[in-house]
Amino acid sequence: MERHFEVKIEELKRILVLMGAYVEKALEEAVDALLKEDRSRFQKVHDIEKKINDEQLRIDNFCIELLAKQGPVARDLRFIVAVIKINTDLERMGDQCVNIAYSGFDYLQSNVPVESPEIAQMVLDVKAMVKQSLDAFVQGDEAMAQAVMLMDDRVDENKNAVLRRLEEWMKKSPEHIKPALNLISIARSLERLGDHATNIAEDVIFASSGRDIRHGKESRL
Amino acid sequence: MERHFEVKIEELKRILVLMGAYVEKALEEAVDALLKEDRSRFQKVHDIEKKINDEQLRIDNFCIELLAKQGPVARDLRFIVAVIKINTDLERMGDQCVNIAYSGFDYLQSNVPVESPEIAQMVLDVKAMVKQSLDAFVQGDEAMAQAVMLMDDRVDENKNAVLRRLEEWMKKSPEHIKPALNLISIARSLERLGDHATNIAEDVIFASSGRDIRHGKESRL
Repeated sequence: MERHFEVKIEELKRILVLMGAYVEKALEEAVDALLKEDRSRFQKVHDIEKKINDEQLRIDNFCIELLAKQGPVARDLRFIVAVIKINTDLERMGDQCVNIAYSGFDYLQSNVPVESPEIAQMVLDVKAMVKQSLDAFVQGDEAMAQAVMLMDDRVDENKNAVLRRLEEWMKKSPEHIKPALNLISIARSLERLGDHATNIAEDVIFASSGRDIRHGKESRL
Repeated sequence: MERHFEVKIEELKRILVLMGAYVEKALEEAVDALLKEDRSRFQKVHDIEKKINDEQLRIDNFCIELLAKQGPVARDLRFIVAVIKINTDLERMGDQCVNIAYSGFDYLQSNVPVESPEIAQMVLDVKAMVKQSLDAFVQGDEAMAQAVMLMDDRVDENKNAVLRRLEEWMKKSPEHIKPALNLISIARSLERLGDHATNIAEDVIFASSGRDIRHGKESRL
């Protein structure tokens, strides 16, 4: 029984990592389409998002079956509850990648490019946060999870810098307004991806140590 | 044992409903502050959000304790898993209310009012969705949950109408740009509140029937 449960937990981890890889791929395609101005890649984001949605249902069912049949406690229970939450975050990250693809497509249509170094930096940071939050999950690495959470501040600062820059740019010409709104939407989606990666990092810490560090409080189960 | 478990489930329901009431109150204060131009109410949103965060931790701990000590199966297990998910949605709804309060405060500062009947309609719809999703949870009422999901389409349509209207308004004068960005941020937060209410409705249907209706698919556990 014990051995069987461990096998199941490893299988669950493997499926979640697969879903995480889809999210990383969707993000890669969405931002590459934007930064390399390659419209053909936007459709790929949609295709990947469908797979993400399928995985979400599979993972939830897997978790509920494990809870029902194995009655896990302590660390195993926390792990499964964390997976249920991370699963939700990953699915919503897929939605944000689709948003980036839509807004990116519209932005490229408008043909009024603007320099936005902060968005390029947000892309780098958010990609790193997503990757590291998933690595922290696989390795149960609390220090790595903490590092993800620290990165979120810079993402938020850069989002605010994007907003300030684009507000000024819009004031210069009415034809800047539409493309600026598209870029603002992209910046907001990147910010939300960072928030989701932060949530995953919090769940990793909870799963491995039982410490709940949300809302600047610390409680132990 | 059986009786004791039922008492616990009722207590969990009661705490979640309390948290839901805080979210409704935070939304009420945030939109009233905006629509009635009463800046003093924005601080209240912050105060309520702190309570929402406290409740979130309490509910998660309660659920994990129930899972560990009672080893629930079938409907009871689905109910607890649904509560874990709804809890996450409610906490993020609190965040959106704070966003509305911030953007509303900035908007009122700018003193360049714009008519936005679609935002007023979004407020009405989203308040109804939040209330009905929580009522559906309390009563385990699938039909009411379905009704919540249908309302989300109108919220999305009105958000798009707000974006179109504000884009035109921004083009008329550079001084419209800042207040318009604040209103767009509010419309996006309202849209997300609608999305969270939809998630809650999906979880209500899953908890009461075991049907998973996400992503237009239907699977039964």
